[in-house]
Parts: sequence; structure tokens; C-alpha cells
Amino acid sequence: MGSDNVAIKYELIKVCKQSGARLGRVHTPHGSFDTPAFMPVGTQATVKTVSPEELKAMDAGIILSNTYHLFLRPGHKLIERAGGLHRFMNWDRAILTDSGGFQVFSLSAMRKIKEEGVEFRSHLNGDRLFLSPELATEIQNALGSDIMMAFDECPPYPADYDYVKQSVERTSRWAERCLKAHARPDDQGLFAIVQGGMYEDLRRQSAADLTSLDFPGYAIGGLSVGEPKDVMYEVLDYTVPLLPADKPRYLMGVGSPDALIEGSIRGIDMFDCVLPTRIARNGTCMTSRGRLVVRNARYAEDFGPLDPACDCYTCRNYSRAYIRHLIKADETFGIRLTTIHNLHFLLKLMQDVRQAIMEDRLLDFRDRFFAEYGLFDNDKGF
Amino acid sequence: MGSDNVAIKYELIKVCKQSGARLGRVHTPHGSFDTPAFMPVGTQATVKTVSPEELKAMDAGIILSNTYHLFLRPGHKLIERAGGLHRFMNWDRAILTDSGGFQVFSLSAMRKIKEEGVEFRSHLNGDRLFLSPELATEIQNALGSDIMMAFDECPPYPADYDYVKQSVERTSRWAERCLKAHARPDDQGLFAIVQGGMYEDLRRQSAADLTSLDFPGYAIGGLSVGEPKDVMYEVLDYTVPLLPADKPRYLMGVGSPDALIEGSIRGIDMFDCVLPTRIARNGTCMTSRGRLVVRNARYAEDFGPLDPACDCYTCRNYSRAYIRHLIKADETFGIRLTTIHNLHFLLKLMQDVRQAIMEDRLLDFRDRFFAEYGLFDNDKGF
Ligand SMILES: [Zn+2]
Ligand SMILES: [Zn+2]
Repeated sequence: MGSDNVAIKYELIKVCKQSGARLGRVHTPHGSFDTPAFMPVGTQATVKTVSPEELKAMDAGIILSNTYHLFLRPGHKLIERAGGLHRFMNWDRAILTDSGGFQVFSLSAMRKIKEEGVEFRSHLNGDRLFLSPELATEIQNALGSDIMMAFDECPPYPADYDYVKQSVERTSRWAERCLKAHARPDDQGLFAIVQGGMYEDLRRQSAADLTSLDFPGYAIGGLSVGEPKDVMYEVLDYTVPLLPADKPRYLMGVGSPDALIEGSIRGIDMFDCVLPTRIARNGTCMTSRGRLVVRNARYAEDFGPLDPACDCYTCRNYSRAYIRHLIKADETFGIRLTTIHNLHFLLKLMQDVRQAIMEDRLLDFRDRFFAEYGLFDNDKGF
Repeated sequence: MGSDNVAIKYELIKVCKQSGARLGRVHTPHGSFDTPAFMPVGTQATVKTVSPEELKAMDAGIILSNTYHLFLRPGHKLIERAGGLHRFMNWDRAILTDSGGFQVFSLSAMRKIKEEGVEFRSHLNGDRLFLSPELATEIQNALGSDIMMAFDECPPYPADYDYVKQSVERTSRWAERCLKAHARPDDQGLFAIVQGGMYEDLRRQSAADLTSLDFPGYAIGGLSVGEPKDVMYEVLDYTVPLLPADKPRYLMGVGSPDALIEGSIRGIDMFDCVLPTRIARNGTCMTSRGRLVVRNARYAEDFGPLDPACDCYTCRNYSRAYIRHLIKADETFGIRLTTIHNLHFLLKLMQDVRQAIMEDRLLDFRDRFFAEYGLFDNDKGF
């Protein structure tokens, strides 16, 4: 760690001799978290159904919240007047906010991309809105997140070369504008997002542009948008080495257990995804033996825990039969229990990944985990 | 306390010299609770949105669950195979189950009352079902609740004299059948329900019939069904003295703060109501200054707690503005926070009532509480 006054610092602890994955620690104004890390998503200033205390009990050191959603409701100025997002939502550990770019492109209708920014309509009420690099930065400064993301354009998959090239160049110009607009560099770190789709030379161009600007961290965006996983891993194989070794590397939108492990092997430090919380709301649970849809009739009289190998609050106290009953009866406590389990499962997985890195055996760990999770079986969902 | 082997024992601790209210303790196979007590309602084997640990943190010593709902879903035999309701829902303190009678009459269509029992259709799927005193008892024996309720008929309000008289007589015959069917008197106490509508002589008849059978506790049913509160208090005035002093007295379906206090003054020991949890789900909170509808726009930027006088988890950590945001954004965590607050408010109110009884000043307490709650104002909801 340097002694310069920057909000976010990355400390490299160890590189796995077997896999090349790295064990580290990210220091923020709201505490440190060990990496590789998974960040639960709290879109609307709450991780759906769970309390801050429950997140802490499962060892979450950082959560993600969505700039786009908070901008629309309740509004970033209200949150600023509340004393910032940490205080508003009663979370005193680290928070990362995304830039809003991804939601503008995925959620809102009638978006028009201009050099100045993006015109779009609110998905809530159809209001005509405009988001620019400067405004996205202002919003995140108002929220007071520890890690902010530069406003980017995330191209769809597939997208043709010329489109992605233009988008990469615009994203670089936007990143520079975000850096200039950033009003609180002492207590908020602004990360840039490397784009470039599935084109190696565009990823190279994007990384070169952005690393020349010396951000305190770098994300890889535009993945996990529908491409096959092999394609994503290939992009990581050539993109991660383009990023500086002394900064955290964040792979956006990834949260399936296999991709968390494969991403770690490729040198990623941070991940986020709505997957564990979203599938929990359908009664789908990640377990050491693969996915389990607890709504299924086969679990009606199954009085064992969701995952016998799990020691989360849910698995220590409740049965599959009870959770199934709650979900069938539309009781939100059931969703809370599956959410706690899924988040605990991924956070525990990352603990195991870190331990395996420490012991130079992450490839062995991957193979055993994949076998147990049923990734080699055709009949198990993933 | 006697030395005889009965599941439920009532211990009288003190009578308030000012009001006649009584302070006591009910001993059950799953611990004791102080009275007068309010019982949170966990209709479907869960108190909506809150965990057992949260209920314990607010000092709930007993909760109520609904026989009718559990009979329909997931079924009492499933819960019996799970090891009983306590284990199924992870609640190791006392549970009271109602008889199912009230729900059969209020929720289901096409009910036919016969001497044998009641034929009705499930409100979930229209299935034709039948509930009798014997089956209601069998269900509650399978659930393993500490306090069971005898299967009764709850007449509507208003109802004419002849109808209520027939109903009272049938309820007495049914209560005797429940007593005979009761298979676990050593670890479950069966309470009888005094009916009789708003007719003093029918209440007298009902109480005489039922007290002659020596149940370990008595409820007053058929109140809080739409009659004015004055009428309810009048019925309590002449009904409570008909009940034995050495048994707990339970007023069913009452949970507004004024009625809890007025009921306590009239010698009631136990209350239950869905009111605090139901209004919480609409964003309505009980506070020391009356009801507060936190959804209202006036609270959008109110960064104070729901109730400055409250020390519940919600009020210690979250603002009105945040809770309003959560509820507007359909985040269930918001409902959890209002539910925790409302239940804490009523459980704390009962603590205050017990303290006032101890100090012979319950009438003074009532007057001050009513004044602060705004019960004398016309512009405040109640
Ligand atoms: Zn678990
Ligand atoms: Zn409170």
C-alpha cells in the first residue's frame, strides 16, 4: 500500500502457484474486504429481503447498489440529505455503485446515445431523462459510495465491430469526463470499465486508453450479456493481463459458481450479480450438490436442510418442507430464507476460493467443486 | 399453582388496586409468559415477514397460529411428521392455535352448519371440506400447540337472539366433544370459548355450561366482529366476572391499543389480533402519538425514526424516509421494518400495562396513553 491519499487501495497478499489466481485485500473508507470477493446486489438501497445484520453474519464486506434505480427513486439528492447511502440504508461497510449505464441500456425504452450522454425514458413512469458522465458522477458523489463506476456504454451481444469500436472510444472519452467531474477523490474511488465486446484488439484499445488515466481500479464490462461462457473466459484470458497488477479487477454481472471460480483463476478480484437473490425469489437454491428447486413437490415432506453441507442461518434452523410451504403460501419469510442461503453459499464459496489460493490448489478445488455441483451432468440445471 | 398434571397453569401475581386489572403468569410446556399479554399472529406457521429471533428480541412469549390455514396448507399431518409446529417453524416458546371455527365462518364460501360439524369450501381451491369438534381437536393435537381452542361457532354481528341461543348451545355441546377427543391433555391445554353475542343471559348460559366442564382456560369469542367498542366493553363488564379467577382469560381478535388497555382493566389476560401486522403491510404504524402512515408524501424527507419514543430495531436504525422509500419501491424489507415496529409497540404497551398494574395506576396510565395517542382528537385515525 502506498502512502498517497487515495480512497481505494489494493493489497496483493499471494498468487496461487497452481492457478495464477490472486489473493488480496481492498481497503476502502468503510473497511476492508478480502478478494476474490462476491458483492451482493442491493439495487434499491436494500439487498432484497435481508437486513444489514444478516449480510454481516454471512461475512459480506461490500455490497453493490444501482445508481440508475436510486437516481429514479428516491433520488440521489434525498439520499445526500439523509447523510449518504451508507447512513440511509444502515450499512457501514463498503458500497460500490454502478454507473447507471447498464440499466439505461437494458431497462429503459427509447434511449438515444449522443456524445453528451444518453437520453432515455424512466422504466417506472416514462419520464424523459438524461444521463451523462458528469451527472452519473454527481449522483455517485451524492450517494457517497466507496467505489464509483465511470459512466460507460455497454454494447449488446452480438454487436458488430464498427459499433463496438465507436462505443469503446466514446466510453474512453466519457471515463475521462467522469474523472474530471469526480468531486470526492479523497473518500471515493472511481473505477473505469474496459469494454470492447468479444474483439481482442478493441479490448486492448479500451484497456490502453483507460489505464493511461490511472484509475484506482478497473472493471471488465460487456460480459455475461448472453455470450457462451467459453467466449467470456477467452475474453478474460486476453483482457485481464492488460490491467495493472496493483489495482483491483472487477468482473461485472457475474455470479454463477463456475464463473466465480473461473474468473478468480483468471485474476479477477471482485464480482457482482443478482443471480443468487433473483433465483432465491423463485425458490431456487444453490447447494454443494447443484441447484435445488425447493418449490418442487418432491420436497413437500423433506425435513432436511436445503444443503446438509451448509451452516447458514437457514440450513441450521429450517427444513426444505418448511421453506417450500412458505413459498407456496406466498410468505416472504420463505424468500428471505432462500436469499440468506444463496448469498451465504456464494460468500462461503469465495472464502473457499481464497483458502485454496492460499494453499496453491485452486485448480484442484475447481475440479472437485464442479464434480460435486454436477457441472459435468447433463440433467442438472446450472 | 397446583401440583396436578395439567399443561397450562395460571399464576396470579397481583390485582391493580386502581383498576382491578390482574398481573399474572401463564405456564406452558414451552415456557411462561407474563399477562396481560398480546400474542402476535403467525397465520401460516410464520408471523409475516419476521423471524423467531426478531420475535424473541421484542419479548414475545407466545404466538398464535391458525388451525384452519394449516389444515388446508401444508396439512396438519405433514406438520406432525415434521415433529410438530414448534419444530416446523423453529419457535420454541409457547404457541396457541385457534379452533378454525372463526375462519370457516369468515373466509370460506358455502358453509353448512350441522350438529356433526361444518361443511365448507376451501378458500384456496374450492375443495369441499368438513370440520368437526373432533377433527379440529385432532388437528391441534397433531400441531402440538401449547394452548388449543375448542371448536366453536362465532355468530355474525348483529345476529338475532334465537340464532345466538342455538349457537351457544351447539358450541357448548361441541366443547364437550372437543374435551373428549383431546388426546394430549398432559402437554396441551384446551381452552373453551364463551359465546353469546351481545346478549347478557346467553353469555351467562355459555359461561355456565363451559365452566362446569373445567377447562384450563377460557376465551371470550364473538367480539371485535364489527360492534361498537362501547358494546364490546359492556359485554366484557358482565362476562369476565363469570369466568373462574384461577384460569387465564383470553379476549379473541383484539389488538388496538385502546382495547388492549380497556380489556386489561376488565380482567383479560390474553389478546391476539392481526391488526399490527396487517396495517404494517400498508405502511401504517402505531406510535406513541397515534397512527402514522409512513407512505405519505410528507415523510419523504423525514429522517427521524417512526417513533422517537420507541427503541425497537427499526426505530434505532432507520428513518421514516428510508422506510417510505422501501415501501414505495415494493421492497419487502420495508414491511419487515414496519411489522417489527408495530409488534414491538404493542408488546411494549403490554409491558407498560403490567408495570402499571404492579404499581396500582392502570387507570392513570390509560388516561395518559389515550391523550398522547390522540384518542381524544377527531382528526387522528385509530
Ligand atoms: Zn444454507
Ligand atoms: Zn419502533
